Order: sequence, then C-alpha cells, then structure tokens
Amino acid sequence: MSSMGREAMTLLDQAATFSEPGPGVTRVLGSAEHQALLVEMRQWFESAGAEVSLDGAGNLVGRWAGTDPSARTLIIGSHQDTVRQGGRYDGIMGVLLPLVVLQQRQAEGRPLPYPVELVAFSDEEGTRFSSTLVGSAALAGTFDPTLLQATDADGVTMEQALRDLGADPAIIPAAARDPQQVSGFLELHIEQGPLLEAENLPVGIVTAITGIERHDLRIIGKAGHAGTTPMHLRRDALVGASEVVQLLDQLCRDTDELVGVVGQLKVIPDAVNVIPGAVEMSLELRSPQTRIRRRARDILLQQIEQALKARHLDWEHRLNYEQTEVSCSPRIQSTLAAAIQDQGLETRYLFSGAGHDGLAMESLTDIGMLFMRCEDGLSHHPDEAVTIDDLDVTAQTLDRFLDHWAEANQ
Amino acid sequence: MSSMGREAMTLLDQAATFSEPGPGVTRVLGSAEHQALLVEMRQWFESAGAEVSLDGAGNLVGRWAGTDPSARTLIIGSHQDTVRQGGRYDGIMGVLLPLVVLQQRQAEGRPLPYPVELVAFSDEEGTRFSSTLVGSAALAGTFDPTLLQATDADGVTMEQALRDLGADPAIIPAAARDPQQVSGFLELHIEQGPLLEAENLPVGIVTAITGIERHDLRIIGKAGHAGTTPMHLRRDALVGASEVVQLLDQLCRDTDELVGVVGQLKVIPDAVNVIPGAVEMSLELRSPQTRIRRRARDILLQQIEQALKARHLDWEHRLNYEQTEVSCSPRIQSTLAAAIQDQGLETRYLFSGAGHDGLAMESLTDIGMLFMRCEDGLSHHPDEAVTIDDLDVTAQTLDRFLDHWAEANQ
Repeated sequence: MSSMGREAMTLLDQAATFSEPGPGVTRVLGSAEHQALLVEMRQWFESAGAEVSLDGAGNLVGRWAGTDPSARTLIIGSHQDTVRQGGRYDGIMGVLLPLVVLQQRQAEGRPLPYPVELVAFSDEEGTRFSSTLVGSAALAGTFDPTLLQATDADGVTMEQALRDLGADPAIIPAAARDPQQVSGFLELHIEQGPLLEAENLPVGIVTAITGIERHDLRIIGKAGHAGTTPMHLRRDALVGASEVVQLLDQLCRDTDELVGVVGQLKVIPDAVNVIPGAVEMSLELRSPQTRIRRRARDILLQQIEQALKARHLDWEHRLNYEQTEVSCSPRIQSTLAAAIQDQGLETRYLFSGAGHDGLAMESLTDIGMLFMRCEDGLSHHPDEAVTIDDLDVTAQTLDRFLDHWAEANQ
Repeated sequence: MSSMGREAMTLLDQAATFSEPGPGVTRVLGSAEHQALLVEMRQWFESAGAEVSLDGAGNLVGRWAGTDPSARTLIIGSHQDTVRQGGRYDGIMGVLLPLVVLQQRQAEGRPLPYPVELVAFSDEEGTRFSSTLVGSAALAGTFDPTLLQATDADGVTMEQALRDLGADPAIIPAAARDPQQVSGFLELHIEQGPLLEAENLPVGIVTAITGIERHDLRIIGKAGHAGTTPMHLRRDALVGASEVVQLLDQLCRDTDELVGVVGQLKVIPDAVNVIPGAVEMSLELRSPQTRIRRRARDILLQQIEQALKARHLDWEHRLNYEQTEVSCSPRIQSTLAAAIQDQGLETRYLFSGAGHDGLAMESLTDIGMLFMRCEDGLSHHPDEAVTIDDLDVTAQTLDRFLDHWAEANQ
C-alpha cells in the first residue's frame, strides 16, 4: 500500500547521488552536480505530465493546468540545494514527494480543478554565495539583482553559476508572479527537530516560521598573569561571559516559544596562563512571536548589564540581524488539519525554528508548511533519515490537501 | 641619596634598547638583540670589578671573590630574556640592580667575607624554544641535553642559538655547581602582582614559588540546529563549560592561597546558529601548598562531574602538567627580614604565583626571592613600570642582606 512513499524514496535516493564526494550530500548552486540533477529532474517532471520550464533564477517549474486553467494557481515547492555535507531529505523531499503525488493523480485521472505549479527552488541554503532564498525571491519579485555579482570562494559570480545551470539571469524579473493569480504556497519539509518523533506523530502543521535576532557581544575585562593576580582583583572576561551563557540559557528554558544559543565564543588572548582580557561572543534568540522575542531581549540585556557590572566588566553589543517571524495562513493550516484528520491522525501544531522559502514567498501569497518526522530531529547532517511509511503518510496528506484546497477556495 | 636606584634605572633603560622593534621589549634566546646585550653587559660586569665568564648555556657569570675565597659562594641572579612585547624590568632588573650594589661595594672598598656570583641566566621565559629555565638548569646540573635539538618557528636549533651567543654547548656539564660550594641562591624580581602596591610597601619576602597544575578538559554534548531543537532536549557543551568556569572561579575565591583560571576555551563547531557540540578548555590551579591545590582539584573535579551529569554532558580530562611548589629557605627569608627591618620597613611575606629560576636552582641549594613593587602589578607587558625610589630601597635591602648573610653563615 505504501507505494507513493516507496516511489518517493527511490527518487530521493537517486537525487542523493548528485553530490560532491561525501560524507552526506553536498550540492551547491550551479555546481556540476546541481546541473546534472536539474537535467534529470526535468525528465521526471515531464514524465509526471507537467509543462516544464526553467526560470531566470534557475528554478525548475512544473505546471499541471487542471480542469479550470482560469482558477488561481497553488504553488508547491522546496529547494534543490544543500548545505555542505548535508542530508538527502532537507529541501529536495519537498520537491520529489509532491512530484510523486501529482504524477499519481495524473496517472489515475484525478485532475484538480485549479492549476498547480511544483517549484524546485534553485538555492535556499546560500551555501555557495552566502545569500539565501535566491529562488523564492525571484518568484516573489523581490530578487535583488546586485546579488548576481556576489562571488563564491573562487571568485565566480552568481550570474555565472546561474548560466551554468542553463538559466538566463536577464529574465529573472519575468519569474515574478502576479499575486492575483496565486492562491497560496505550500512547502513540505522534514521537521529538523525532535518533537514529532518524541510524540510519535508522522506529520505536523507549521504555525509560523520563527523570527530571529542575532547580537555580537564583546566583554572587556583586564588580561593579567594568572599566577600573580589575586582572585579579588581580577576582571576575568570569560567568567563574565560564562554568566551570560547561563543567563541566556536559563531565560530560554523559562520562556515558552523562545529558544536561544551562544554558538560562537572567542577568548582573547586565549593562553593557558593568562587571565582572559576580552571575550567576543554571539547571542541568538528565536521566537515565532516578536513580542516574546523582544521582551526576552530586554530582560536578557538588563540581566547582562547587572551581572557584568557586579564583576567590574565593561561590555558592548550590536544587534546585527533581525528578521520578524512569518505566520502561516490559517486557511492553509486548517486545510492541512482536514487532510490529516481524514487519515485518523492527530493534528499537531508546531512552529519552525529554521528559516524556509516561505520567508520570501510570504510577500507574494499566503504560505503554509507541513513538517514530516525525521530521525533524531537531525538535519544538515549526513545522518538525516526518514521512513518510507512517513513519506507515504505525508504523500497521502498532500493528496487529501489538494482536494480540500479546492473546497477552501470556492 | 637615591644614587643606586638612579644608576640601576640608567642601566635598565640602556638594556631595554636591546630589543626587537616594540611595543615593549622583545629579547629572545640567541637573537641579535640578545647577543648585543651580552657584549654590553660583559663590559658592565668587568667595570664593576667582577671576573667574568660565559658558560656553555649562555649564562653570563660575574664573580667577586671576597676576602675569604674558601667560603661558600652566594649566587645572585635573574634572567636576560623576555616574553614577546614584555617590559623592561622582568628578569633583567634582578641582574642589573645587584650589579650596581656590587659595583658600589667594590668602589667603596666594602668587600664581602665570601664569594658572590652574579648570574645573568640566558633563558627563563622559554619564548623562542618553549622550554623554560634553560640557564638555571645548567647551573643546577639538571640541563637535559636533548633540548639542544629543540627548534624555533624557523627550524633553528637551540644549539645554534647558544652558539650565536658565543657559548659552547659542549661545555654545559661544566656549568653545574658543586652544592657543597654554594651557600644559597637569591633572586630579585618585580612582584608581577598588585599586593605590595595595594599595601604601599616597596619590597616583600617570598615564602614559596607556587605549585601549578594544568588540565585539558573536553566537554561533549550534541551539536544541533539552534532553531529547531527545543531547549529541554539540548545538550549544549558551552552551557556546561560555562558552569565549569564559574565553579573554578568561585572555588578559588573561596579558598585562601589558591588561584586558578580557565585561560583557553574553544567552541566546536563555533557557528552562530549551531548548538555547541563540544568545548575544549584549559584549567589551571596554583597554590604555594600542594595540600591546598590537590584538595581543590578533588573538589573541583567532583563539582564538575555533578554539574555536567545534571546537564547530560560527557567529559574527559587530562592532567598535563604538575609542578610542586618550591619553598624559600627560612634562613634566606629571615636574613631578608633583617635587611628590611634595618631600614625601618615593614616585613611583608607573600608567595610567588609565577615560576622563576629558583624552581631549577632549588635542586642545587637553598633559594630565596625578594619582590619589588611594580605599577599596577603589571608584568609581561610593555607598560611594566617601577620607580627609582623603589629600586633604591631594593638595592639598600640587598646591600644589607649581603652583610647579614655573612653572619647567617658563620
């Protein structure tokens, strides 16, 4: 019975072979592996009955016109690229699983009463050019053309990388969609977290894509001889930094819908027998609610001020990145809920702690996401794993969603 | 009145010019600057009436025979070399200030009833070859000849560096002294700490050179996506490491005669949006009493075990260096006390938190040290500073010590 899941797994295993040497899958924008996968996928899309095109940003687009070509189009998609030494499901699962569903509907003569477009976005991770959401920004009409001159580590421009894919960057503006012609955007993605696994559920409905803020923090103490300076006269920047790490961790543990981390920390001068004179560190906070995130920030900065002052340490900080959360459309959420209930499954709502193409698509149309359970909550890692059964449940959920979506848009 | 202090300052200022380009003074074993200083100092030693020689390890030795050449020799000395971008007093003050005292006694016709040797040790810091106490080990007869093949960053051997100084490494064994012929070893050194300054005292008597132990600690958690992993499922190695930093700091603050530091800390993978999967860090504990240091170690390792276990973190540690403290001879301490009291000054006893040539000399003879106040407790830094007045008090103290030492050895 699990034929769609098995078919999808076969395609995913094939796609994983389009990779730089392992471990894991490495497929960056415009690489030889990316070029080859694109050629292969075009054939898969065509075999599934789609009208296929490659837009100026390297997005592969398959269109199934449906029985009412004048109805608004539902866009489904995810990305083709990976991080370095990533897994075989992050991104590409959201392209190939819907492909199997659309192919099956085509084969079974169950056309939809509205057009569907399946988009394989060229670049979401930004691995090669440090600029994410390239493909989805093109569809949303927000692509910044100066990005074309961004260069990779070898000095190759993004423009050249897109040409290597067979795309013509000059026609990127034509990739932008008319909001009036689009009914919504749906992405299927592995959870990248452990909640569904912990609760023994195959799928979950995403309520929002998290908001993120990042700070650079510099704590300034006084370097000194670690043998000759009495404890009470020290101004050890690492002792202060340690308290900051603890404060952030505790605040996030104590606050619902808030996560945070100190991911980077550098000790200066970093010598075994020298009292740390300064520490540079990153702070990151994420929440699906701006209110929660900003309030946490205020509390944290106050706590840091108090803690460091008590240790006679100076500090400076700079907010260097802030992205507001994007909410998923209630209409897409409720349609996903109906599709999940059709299968007798529990509807679990959760937010996405990671960024996705929906961040760009949201300026074009309503967005929604369905998460699929993954082993150990692992992503961006060679050990990413999913089961055929879960792929099948996800495929059935999408299949049901497509029918319900016709009703929701009447 | 402060003529010895002023003379010493003049010599110290001259010595500071024998340095690689600044900031501060950089003079490493066998460098052109070191060679040039050695030539200059030899003349200064000879002008002061000493019989001068250069031993196989590059130690410059000046001998004043005194009125009873058959009496046991008092060795006074410190080192010629510096750390990179160090100051103008650490080490060389303990050579040039005694030189001024011995010169003055010679000029005033106040010979001592025992021989004195002033030794300018070739290398104590180990800046160039990462091996400390080279000069004093030669005198103590503990020099390890395999060290001669140690290489600097450019592949030059220590053997070559010593030859560049005009020394003949083949005769290093002849530098070893007969313990029966030596009455003690005294070193004058800047405090490298802030205690004397805080108590407004020019000099202090060292009771012991600290014992030191160093550990490598590795904390193992689990790396993960910092957006998608819920707080309660994280095993953040940096959160654990932060607790270790706090535990060590608090234990040292709560324990007399114990100092400690986490000077090095490395986060893996050190990315702004990845939960730290591992942390590598150094732990250092110092105490003038083995008992205190080992007890603190036991407590600390227990606390670490408990704290990390509670956070589901694994850890490993390795004691990679342990050096027992060296006590200063009570006879030298009491003689220094008499010399200080002669000047109507308070006798302050303190321990040295840093290592010194006495660590090597202790296997040869009784050792003692006199600390001199330095500005802000600063050492190993271009801003090292002392006053002419303090140099003078220290010179007077040594002058008085030399007389009292005759009585102490009767």
